[in-house]
Amino acid sequence: MPDNNLDVPGSAEVFSAAQDIAERIHRTPLMTSGLIDRACGANLFFKCEHLQKTGAFKARGASNALCRLPAGTTMVATHSSGNHGAALAWAAAARGIACTVVMPETSPLAKRAAVAGYGAEIVLCGPTLADREAALRKVVDDSGAHVVPPFDDRRIIAGQGTVALEILEQCRERGFTPDIVLAPVGGGGLLAGTGLAMAAMAPEVLVLGAEPAGADDAQRSLRSGVHVTSQTPDTIADGLRTPLGERNFAVIRQTVKDIVTASEKSIVDAMQLLWTRTKQLVEPSAAVPLAAILEHPARFRDKKVALVLSGGNMDLVRAASLFAGEESEP
Amino acid sequence: MPDNNLDVPGSAEVFSAAQDIAERIHRTPLMTSGLIDRACGANLFFKCEHLQKTGAFKARGASNALCRLPAGTTMVATHSSGNHGAALAWAAAARGIACTVVMPETSPLAKRAAVAGYGAEIVLCGPTLADREAALRKVVDDSGAHVVPPFDDRRIIAGQGTVALEILEQCRERGFTPDIVLAPVGGGGLLAGTGLAMAAMAPEVLVLGAEPAGADDAQRSLRSGVHVTSQTPDTIADGLRTPLGERNFAVIRQTVKDIVTASEKSIVDAMQLLWTRTKQLVEPSAAVPLAAILEHPARFRDKKVALVLSGGNMDLVRAASLFAGEESEP
Repeated sequence: MPDNNLDVPGSAEVFSAAQDIAERIHRTPLMTSGLIDRACGANLFFKCEHLQKTGAFKARGASNALCRLPAGTTMVATHSSGNHGAALAWAAAARGIACTVVMPETSPLAKRAAVAGYGAEIVLCGPTLADREAALRKVVDDSGAHVVPPFDDRRIIAGQGTVALEILEQCRERGFTPDIVLAPVGGGGLLAGTGLAMAAMAPEVLVLGAEPAGADDAQRSLRSGVHVTSQTPDTIADGLRTPLGERNFAVIRQTVKDIVTASEKSIVDAMQLLWTRTKQLVEPSAAVPLAAILEHPARFRDKKVALVLSGGNMDLVRAASLFAGEESEP
Repeated sequence: MPDNNLDVPGSAEVFSAAQDIAERIHRTPLMTSGLIDRACGANLFFKCEHLQKTGAFKARGASNALCRLPAGTTMVATHSSGNHGAALAWAAAARGIACTVVMPETSPLAKRAAVAGYGAEIVLCGPTLADREAALRKVVDDSGAHVVPPFDDRRIIAGQGTVALEILEQCRERGFTPDIVLAPVGGGGLLAGTGLAMAAMAPEVLVLGAEPAGADDAQRSLRSGVHVTSQTPDTIADGLRTPLGERNFAVIRQTVKDIVTASEKSIVDAMQLLWTRTKQLVEPSAAVPLAAILEHPARFRDKKVALVLSGGNMDLVRAASLFAGEESEP
C-alpha cells in the first residue's frame, strides 16, 4: 500500500511481529471507566501499555527488531528521548547483546535511570535531532554497533502495530468492533503500525492520531500532504517531541484519516483525570489521546473509541507539580 | 468465636455480605510484580482495592451496612478521615438516602472532594476522635440520622471481610492457597473481617496486620491483650490514624496472629515502589503492608503473601512531594 521505493513495512509484517514477540511481552489489559465515559460522552477503551514490559509500548518494536538483527550482531545502539532507549536496553539484555543509548540531556531522570537499570551504556547529547544523530554516528563509528532507530524503521513500525491487533482482538472478545482507534503520534511508529494493522484487519475502523498542539508536525504533514521535517516542539508530552519519521509518514498518509491535537491544558486535565479516576500512573504523552477527545468532544460523541495509554515512565514530582494549582489546599 | 456479650459478627455474616453486595462492588484484580517479588524475596499478590468503587475497600462495608439499615431509615451519618465517608456517601446516593459525613479538618482535600462529589453533606471538626464523636452526636440530635460507624460495627466488619474471601478464591483459581494474608489496620474493620473470613475458609493461613510504627495501638493491644484505646498518631498513612475499635479488637485477638509495623521511611519507599514499578496510584495507607514486608523480610521470605492495596485516594501533589528528595534532578 505505501510507496514501495521506501523501505516500509506491510500489514503482513505486523502479523509476523505479533507471533514472534508474543512470549516476550505482556498482553496488556483493555480498561474502561464509567466516570470518564460520562465526562466525554463516548465509550472509551484504554489499552494499558503503561503496564507493558519497560512501562511502554516501545517494548514491542524493540523486541521485534531484536528478532530481526543481521546475523552476527553483538551490539546495538539507538537514540531516544527515553522509552525506546529503555525498551532496546531491555530487549538487548534479554538476548545478551550489548547496547548503547544516546539520550538528550533534557530527557526525564526516570527514563535515564531505566536505561541504566537494564545495563545499557548512556551517551548524553544536546536536545535536537541533529545532536542525537551526530552522537549516534560517533558511537557507531567507534564500536560498529547495529543501529535500531526509535521509530523510522520497518521492524519498529511492525512491532508497535501489534498493539492495534490486540486492541481489535480484545474488543471482539467483548462482542464489538471499535468505531475509532486513537493513538498518540510523535515519531509515528505506533500510529503507522496501528494504521497497517487496522487496514488489514478492520478497514471500516477510523484510525486517528493524537498530537500535542505544541508539536503538531504530523497533523500539518498529513493535512498538507507534504512531510514537515522540522519543528520546535513545546509540550510537556516529552515522548511526542520527536518529528514524524519518513517511513512513518509514508504509511500514515495511506492508513490514517486525520490527526487531532490537544492543548497543554487539556493534556494536564486528561492526565489528572486518569490519575485520580483510574488510579493509573500514565505519563503526559499517554494522556494526549484522552486530551484530544476532551478538546474535540463532537468528533467522538457516542462512539466506541479505543485509545492507547502509551507509557507510564516519568519523574513523579515534576508530573505531580503540574497539578499543583488545582490540587493544593484552598 | 469472639466474645458474645459484645455485638460482634461471625464468619457467616461475611458470607451473607459477599452475596448481598456482589452486584454493587467490583471483584478487583489480584496483581503480581516480578520486580517487587525479587526485591522482597517473597511471592506477593496485591489485591487491588484502590480500583474498588470509590477508590477503596470501604465501599464493601458501606454497601453491606446499607443492605441492613433499620426499616424506615431515610438518612445516614458517620465520621471518617475520608474513605469511609466517601463510601457511605456513594452507597447512600445509590439508594436515594441522605447522608452527612463528619470529617476532621486535617483530612486530605481529595477525600473531602470525593464525599462532596457523591452528594453528601460535610461537617468539619477537630482532629481527635472525641471531636469527631461530638460533632456526629450533634448531627444525630439535629436530624435523627442513623449512624453507620467507620469500623466499629458488625455490618462494616463483615462487609470488609469480603475482600479476604475474594483473595482466597482468586488464589485458588490460580492453584494455590496463600501462606499469609496481610491487611493494613487502622480502626480494624478490614483486618477483623479478614480474620473472620480466613478462620472459616482457610484456618491454616496466617493472618497478619500491618500498621505504621507511628500509630501502633493495634500491635500493642494484640501483644499485651489489653485494648489500647488512645494514641497520638504520627504517620503519613492518614487512613490508619484511627484507634482500633472495640469490636474489631475482640475479633482480631481471636483470628489474627500478629501485627507487623512499618516506619515512615519504609512506607514512602513502598509507595514509591508501587507507583514506579506497578504504575498503580495507591495512597500511603495502602503501601503499609508492603512497607512491613520490606522492613521485616525474614518473616515473609519465600512465602506466598496476599496483601491488600486498600485505597488510592490522596492529594497527588502532597504525596509526590514525599519522593522529592529521591526523584529530583541530581
